[in-house]
Amino acid sequence: MTQPIEFYFDFSSPYGYFASTKIDEIATRHNREVDWRPVLLGAIFKVTGSAPLPTIPIKGEYAKHDFPRTARWFGVPFTFPSVFPIASLAPSRAFYWLQDHDPQQAKELAKRLYRAYFIEDIDISRPKNTLAIAVDMGLESAAVEASFDDTAIKERLKAAVNSALAKGVFGSPYFIVDGEPFHGSDRMDQVEKWLATGGW
Amino acid sequence: MTQPIEFYFDFSSPYGYFASTKIDEIATRHNREVDWRPVLLGAIFKVTGSAPLPTIPIKGEYAKHDFPRTARWFGVPFTFPSVFPIASLAPSRAFYWLQDHDPQQAKELAKRLYRAYFIEDIDISRPKNTLAIAVDMGLESAAVEASFDDTAIKERLKAAVNSALAKGVFGSPYFIVDGEPFHGSDRMDQVEKWLATGGW
Repeated sequence: MTQPIEFYFDFSSPYGYFASTKIDEIATRHNREVDWRPVLLGAIFKVTGSAPLPTIPIKGEYAKHDFPRTARWFGVPFTFPSVFPIASLAPSRAFYWLQDHDPQQAKELAKRLYRAYFIEDIDISRPKNTLAIAVDMGLESAAVEASFDDTAIKERLKAAVNSALAKGVFGSPYFIVDGEPFHGSDRMDQVEKWLATGGW
Repeated sequence: MTQPIEFYFDFSSPYGYFASTKIDEIATRHNREVDWRPVLLGAIFKVTGSAPLPTIPIKGEYAKHDFPRTARWFGVPFTFPSVFPIASLAPSRAFYWLQDHDPQQAKELAKRLYRAYFIEDIDISRPKNTLAIAVDMGLESAAVEASFDDTAIKERLKAAVNSALAKGVFGSPYFIVDGEPFHGSDRMDQVEKWLATGGW
């Protein structure tokens, strides 16, 4: 029996978005499931002392050049959002609420949210925008809206972030394969080799 | 006529060392030269606000796990040095001094210095250790020793760091291929594709 691949990402992370378009097919090739786990880089950066890439001197300029280049490398559409970065509380809460009801639908919601933010330039940090995307999927408006302010869901997201930190997650995307950690969309070739060979 | 690949690295950088074992053969496959340019990450991190990887909470633990794993990935020997990181003034100065006389020998010295530090656990920040490695290559002891305190060589190294910063170098290794920047030993597949195709 094999464990799912743990896939940590922030809805505000371009590299998380790129990874989200590829990780399921990599897993399928190796008969694995993927456990999608949105986190909040803002909370994680407080622990590591890091900051959103575009705000870092010199490295930020490289990142802004590398985002679209990496999108072309992976062959996926990408528009640098006009509001960036965003606090991804609303999409993350909607995700965890839905995951309790239907994990497959939660994954579909995550993909639609990423597309909205990084292709259609929709600011998904605004609850009404995340709500509209969820409703468009056929989810019940009142239930989704309630998830944004539900205490149990808020705690659920906090616990997910703390659990990620305890496992060593410091960036997005971050993968754990049978206990082995990999950081970055540029490490998915290593994720795939680890799945194929059990390590090196 | 093609430009050489600019290869920036710090003698204290494990990922710089890994890249140094591969970049010349990548260049040769594409009929390119490599211009090796040691820099001082300490000076660069003052501008970007970064710090040596192992000192960063959580990310540091990952790095210490990733160094030997990356060495195995590239198939090169590696020992985590007992003194790490180091200020790489002495090896960098010896390098630039030698480059003025014989660029090919300077590259050979850089490879020997990296091997000494990351395989044999020799602290090359100590001038006498860098000197011994240079002398073992057949270089004249007094001339190498003089380079450590030569004002012109000190200025040469400072200028190299400032030139790197001006070009956007924020880490090690860092490559520039026909004006296109790539950061990290995990981007050498992209460096190679850029060389092969002229971009994507």
